[in-house]
Amino acid sequence: MNLLLLEPDQLSAEGVISLAGPQARHVLTVLGTVPGDEVRVGLLNGPLGRGRVVATRDDSVDLLCTFDSTIQEPPRVDLLLALPRPKVLRRLWSQLAALGVGQIILTNAARVERNYFDTHVLTAACYRPLLIEGLQQARDTRLPSVSIHRQFRVLVEDDLDRLAPRASRLAAHPGDARTIADVLRDRSAERVLLAVGPEGGWNDFEVEMLRAHGFVTAGLGTRTLRTDTACVALIALVHEMIR
Amino acid sequence: MNLLLLEPDQLSAEGVISLAGPQARHVLTVLGTVPGDEVRVGLLNGPLGRGRVVATRDDSVDLLCTFDSTIQEPPRVDLLLALPRPKVLRRLWSQLAALGVGQIILTNAARVERNYFDTHVLTAACYRPLLIEGLQQARDTRLPSVSIHRQFRVLVEDDLDRLAPRASRLAAHPGDARTIADVLRDRSAERVLLAVGPEGGWNDFEVEMLRAHGFVTAGLGTRTLRTDTACVALIALVHEMIR
Repeated sequence: MNLLLLEPDQLSAEGVISLAGPQARHVLTVLGTVPGDEVRVGLLNGPLGRGRVVATRDDSVDLLCTFDSTIQEPPRVDLLLALPRPKVLRRLWSQLAALGVGQIILTNAARVERNYFDTHVLTAACYRPLLIEGLQQARDTRLPSVSIHRQFRVLVEDDLDRLAPRASRLAAHPGDARTIADVLRDRSAERVLLAVGPEGGWNDFEVEMLRAHGFVTAGLGTRTLRTDTACVALIALVHEMIR
Repeated sequence: MNLLLLEPDQLSAEGVISLAGPQARHVLTVLGTVPGDEVRVGLLNGPLGRGRVVATRDDSVDLLCTFDSTIQEPPRVDLLLALPRPKVLRRLWSQLAALGVGQIILTNAARVERNYFDTHVLTAACYRPLLIEGLQQARDTRLPSVSIHRQFRVLVEDDLDRLAPRASRLAAHPGDARTIADVLRDRSAERVLLAVGPEGGWNDFEVEMLRAHGFVTAGLGTRTLRTDTACVALIALVHEMIR
């Protein structure tokens, strides 16, 4: 944990926060702090700051927090992802938050199995702590927003312009000879909406629908990757090309 | 599994292979093949090919295999990695093989805990099946070679020229303003040796030693990533830049 991310309602009017449970144990045991020490803190969806240890007890610790006057911009990449297997999605949440995505738009597709939508991995109770873990790893405060869409066509035709206005649209399409570096090198994209399909790929109808709605397709070499590996690779690549 | 990877000694002189166990179950149950069907096969460190189902029994299947006349080149990226936590390394093996690395050179470093070297995750019995899983995912036959080095200085000064001759050397160094895209864009690298440090980063001595031995340092933005996320991101980026 490289940052202690706090919920705004944890703070008193004087800027003091009393930590208990795992957060207190982390500050007391892993960081081994004593009164007077400082730790990096952040307010969820707010600024970064410093917390000075003002009191420690066996199982709790009080921090006096001060925060920067500005808030980081949200990451400039949004992800449109065909819902992967629950086991794969579970591994992805924290990595997506760590790499930096503004929003995670999960969608059905022809090659997504319907029962994937029934998993508890899609509940905020499951994914929110994992997203926060990723933010704390990467020292970011901006929680990605998550939305779940059961109808690909409705999403692309009706919802996407509202969800991700003014983003350059890029769809990963295995086997496409055009590279992501080539596509993004020629653009000065402020934001990128990256679409990643299911393990078996988008079907022809879906690729045509994406293209008809402004997505440029590009490949990632000839190797077939697991969805989680592909997502990490693609998001890192897009970030690097629009830095 | 997108490819069935076979050990050369599994094949009869006539090119027939009898599969049992998980490989047979995959061909019979997951792929649902019947006699006459073909499946993608590959010989470990050899060519790709096709296997025609010639006989099926309850728990075994015979394939008649024919192979391409050429063998794919090994991947053009080698990885020099400070030994990560066993749990992280366990997650990495298959992803490294899937992304494509010629060799995996594991090393000690100041911020590597000594007991990481005692894990069974470093035994071939553990990592070889995981590497093969990654190759089967990516449809590659070239098993990455693995070597383990307990002395960073001896590795860099005495062993690296022999292990990775003629490779462009690049070290990931968190916070370095120079980007990997910038460094590799200006080079026509045939092979790249990519060095990735421990979670806390290389120390100053190690960075200086890498630079003194031809490594150019470059960063990956301001976010601190877990070693497995960082490795996937960096390897994908290097592959994309030297495509």
